[in-house]
Amino acid sequence: MMTPSLPRRLAAEAVGTALLAAVLIGSGIQSAALSADGGMRFAANVLASVLALAVLIALLAPVSGAHFNPLVSAAVWWTERRSGTGLTLRELGGYVAAQLLGAVAGAGLANTMFERPFLELSGRQRSAGHLWLAEAVATGVLILLVFGLLRAGHGGWAPVAVAGWIGAACWGTSSGSFANPALTVGRALSDSYTGIAPGSVPAFVLAQCVGAAAGLALVAVLFGRSRDRVPDDARELLVR
Amino acid sequence: MMTPSLPRRLAAEAVGTALLAAVLIGSGIQSAALSADGGMRFAANVLASVLALAVLIALLAPVSGAHFNPLVSAAVWWTERRSGTGLTLRELGGYVAAQLLGAVAGAGLANTMFERPFLELSGRQRSAGHLWLAEAVATGVLILLVFGLLRAGHGGWAPVAVAGWIGAACWGTSSGSFANPALTVGRALSDSYTGIAPGSVPAFVLAQCVGAAAGLALVAVLFGRSRDRVPDDARELLVR
Amino acid sequence: MMTPSLPRRLAAEAVGTALLAAVLIGSGIQSAALSADGGMRFAANVLASVLALAVLIALLAPVSGAHFNPLVSAAVWWTERRSGTGLTLRELGGYVAAQLLGAVAGAGLANTMFERPFLELSGRQRSAGHLWLAEAVATGVLILLVFGLLRAGHGGWAPVAVAGWIGAACWGTSSGSFANPALTVGRALSDSYTGIAPGSVPAFVLAQCVGAAAGLALVAVLFGRSRDRVPDDARELLVR
Amino acid sequence: MMTPSLPRRLAAEAVGTALLAAVLIGSGIQSAALSADGGMRFAANVLASVLALAVLIALLAPVSGAHFNPLVSAAVWWTERRSGTGLTLRELGGYVAAQLLGAVAGAGLANTMFERPFLELSGRQRSAGHLWLAEAVATGVLILLVFGLLRAGHGGWAPVAVAGWIGAACWGTSSGSFANPALTVGRALSDSYTGIAPGSVPAFVLAQCVGAAAGLALVAVLFGRSRDRVPDDARELLVR
Repeated sequence: MMTPSLPRRLAAEAVGTALLAAVLIGSGIQSAALSADGGMRFAANVLASVLALAVLIALLAPVSGAHFNPLVSAAVWWTERRSGTGLTLRELGGYVAAQLLGAVAGAGLANTMFERPFLELSGRQRSAGHLWLAEAVATGVLILLVFGLLRAGHGGWAPVAVAGWIGAACWGTSSGSFANPALTVGRALSDSYTGIAPGSVPAFVLAQCVGAAAGLALVAVLFGRSRDRVPDDARELLVR
Repeated sequence: MMTPSLPRRLAAEAVGTALLAAVLIGSGIQSAALSADGGMRFAANVLASVLALAVLIALLAPVSGAHFNPLVSAAVWWTERRSGTGLTLRELGGYVAAQLLGAVAGAGLANTMFERPFLELSGRQRSAGHLWLAEAVATGVLILLVFGLLRAGHGGWAPVAVAGWIGAACWGTSSGSFANPALTVGRALSDSYTGIAPGSVPAFVLAQCVGAAAGLALVAVLFGRSRDRVPDDARELLVR
Repeated sequence: MMTPSLPRRLAAEAVGTALLAAVLIGSGIQSAALSADGGMRFAANVLASVLALAVLIALLAPVSGAHFNPLVSAAVWWTERRSGTGLTLRELGGYVAAQLLGAVAGAGLANTMFERPFLELSGRQRSAGHLWLAEAVATGVLILLVFGLLRAGHGGWAPVAVAGWIGAACWGTSSGSFANPALTVGRALSDSYTGIAPGSVPAFVLAQCVGAAAGLALVAVLFGRSRDRVPDDARELLVR
Repeated sequence: MMTPSLPRRLAAEAVGTALLAAVLIGSGIQSAALSADGGMRFAANVLASVLALAVLIALLAPVSGAHFNPLVSAAVWWTERRSGTGLTLRELGGYVAAQLLGAVAGAGLANTMFERPFLELSGRQRSAGHLWLAEAVATGVLILLVFGLLRAGHGGWAPVAVAGWIGAACWGTSSGSFANPALTVGRALSDSYTGIAPGSVPAFVLAQCVGAAAGLALVAVLFGRSRDRVPDDARELLVR
């Protein structure tokens, strides 16, 4: 199968990230409105988000790799920079722009579907060392998971495995497991259940970057550096 | 495998849509009776409905394509009108009639199982612009999903992917993600948790139609118009 | 692979039915003790039961077919009585006895694990026409599902599909979807959340039998009577 | 594929067990903080834990077998002691040490992510005969499941089947289904929702050992002793 054209791949990243952000933010608004119990609210929000994540990866991986996350795209660029099967730096720039644009549009879509202003700033502070540790852990394991599955030839499991990890990490860590700079920006644009104050965003993103680097190091430790074989199912996630 | 006869296919559409409507409406009645928490009620209703959806698609796709939804059948007719592998206009009429009949019968079955009048009209108004937007989004992504999976050769994932999307959309959109004109009619015939007042039905169905058209346009944007290959697993969903 | 010996198959049916009954009854006891919300109680009870059902079918289907249900075994005997790939009448008797024994033992195990008397009689009346209708529907679709998947060559999906249907039916019908005479007997022997008074058992079982017969009729309507091919994956569920 | 080096395999066991312990303990802390309902608390804790379990087995089975449990490693050593495809006694010692170290580190990580002391002793007594019976049942079925799936050539189902069983057993038994000596030690080091007082640990571990032995006996009864074939998918779980 030919690699789809770059505009088509960027459209897929934008659409996918937008729908993911819309479900993530919208389900937070709805669950907070429906339930009086904090556990039920979070459970519904997490469940809806991971279902959307799994479905959108399964749908769009054949088009763009279904990264929906600047750190996944950056890791694809980094790990495949010599193999020619990943992203070029210019393509990486396009992916990140499409993901950010999609996240903003998705926040606006969620706000509109729930009769809120199209975009608004969240007032929810999320700023503390233990939260940054949690973001690093959630992001690091996400990267370990994606590239570990690829190395082991199980890339086809990525839709459910990535969704499964995010579901586990949302509960198992203290930060809400954003684990994605684009979605972090999108969340800052809805003053609702899943929000994060703009002032808390930079440190969250920095923690995610540190975690992603640690995740790539763990891939090397656990799966080795050599790339003796390129599994067939790696092609979808690695783009081409 | 030979395509099953049209009467058998129509029976499968009627039985499948009836069981889907019965579980959707029945689980709404039961969860509203059992739980005092609005989040728990909706969670149980959504979970039961998507389980039934996945199981019934898996069971009946080899017989009729397991559309259970006039807009899916219409989209199959439209996209395959030149290939001869989808539905003819006459078959489409039969499918839609069977689905509507099934949805009505399913509402009656649910009402009977929970000791309510066989059919009754819902009094629940659902009429507002943001709800129509939500219906269009939920239906559009449903169509994008079904035909995108087919184009990518992953049609066999449809049972779980379709169910997964509906589960995500129920929480992530504001309208309840009916996304199906037949089930919308069925819901109007039970004055219970999942109901919709008959007067709210036409605008809901119109929004679903607009969303379905947008979804087909997105399929062309993201997956292209050409049909270089007809994946083997497309045959079940496309009927023949 | 050779068909396992009859004693081994009966041991598998007894062990599987016992574990299924233990989880079903035990999770009812625990969820009723932990939660104050009726929806949460039932959700946890249903979730645990369907997880156990899926896992035990996956584990034991290669040994005995993993019926765990006298009506499934009876339907295997009936549908395969001329093909020689199902159960003989004598084997059917053994299967039903093993399932009943397992259900009683599982009730005793659950009672013991939760510090209750080994066996006790439930006082919970479940006796009304709408409940019997619900039992017939739940059982009929179960039978349609098992034999429909086999006819379509998707027997390997049985563990998750059967569990998915039971999960949907527990919420979508009014009776609790026992759908299994052996488990109905087991439930009568614990005076706890999942219980049924002994006096309510015969009518429940009769409704299940009627539903199973209707389910077999639906298999013929939707999938035809002919057996042009015997799918490979049918062998595990059909025993040999 | 070559068997990874022992240090790499031990690193995988330590990392996997640490992440599993962190999610198990962390999700308990978070669900207890968020929800006022005992059923919801346990449901979220169980759901997060089994998602992590499934994902980590899928990720790390190709490296180390993904045992994360001294009793699974011991059973691999025992059942394969003559075939040369399992663990040597020395390797078993390394596996158990890595798992214990990982569980302690994971408890510390969870405590730190939720702003608690790095390590602390739990004060929660869990000591009674019916709890020990429950631990033996949960562990015994776990062992039966892993080795039964291997015998039947379905080892590739282990990630979801093991997670499914633990999810069922958490609700269906009375002890919380620790079913793992390493995680039992890790739980003792956080004075939070999932904790166990150090004084209750030895009897829990003993019950788990008894259950594991019974599970191996059941494997022989239900699946036979002979090893006529070594399924391909057994290699990942058995290490080499």
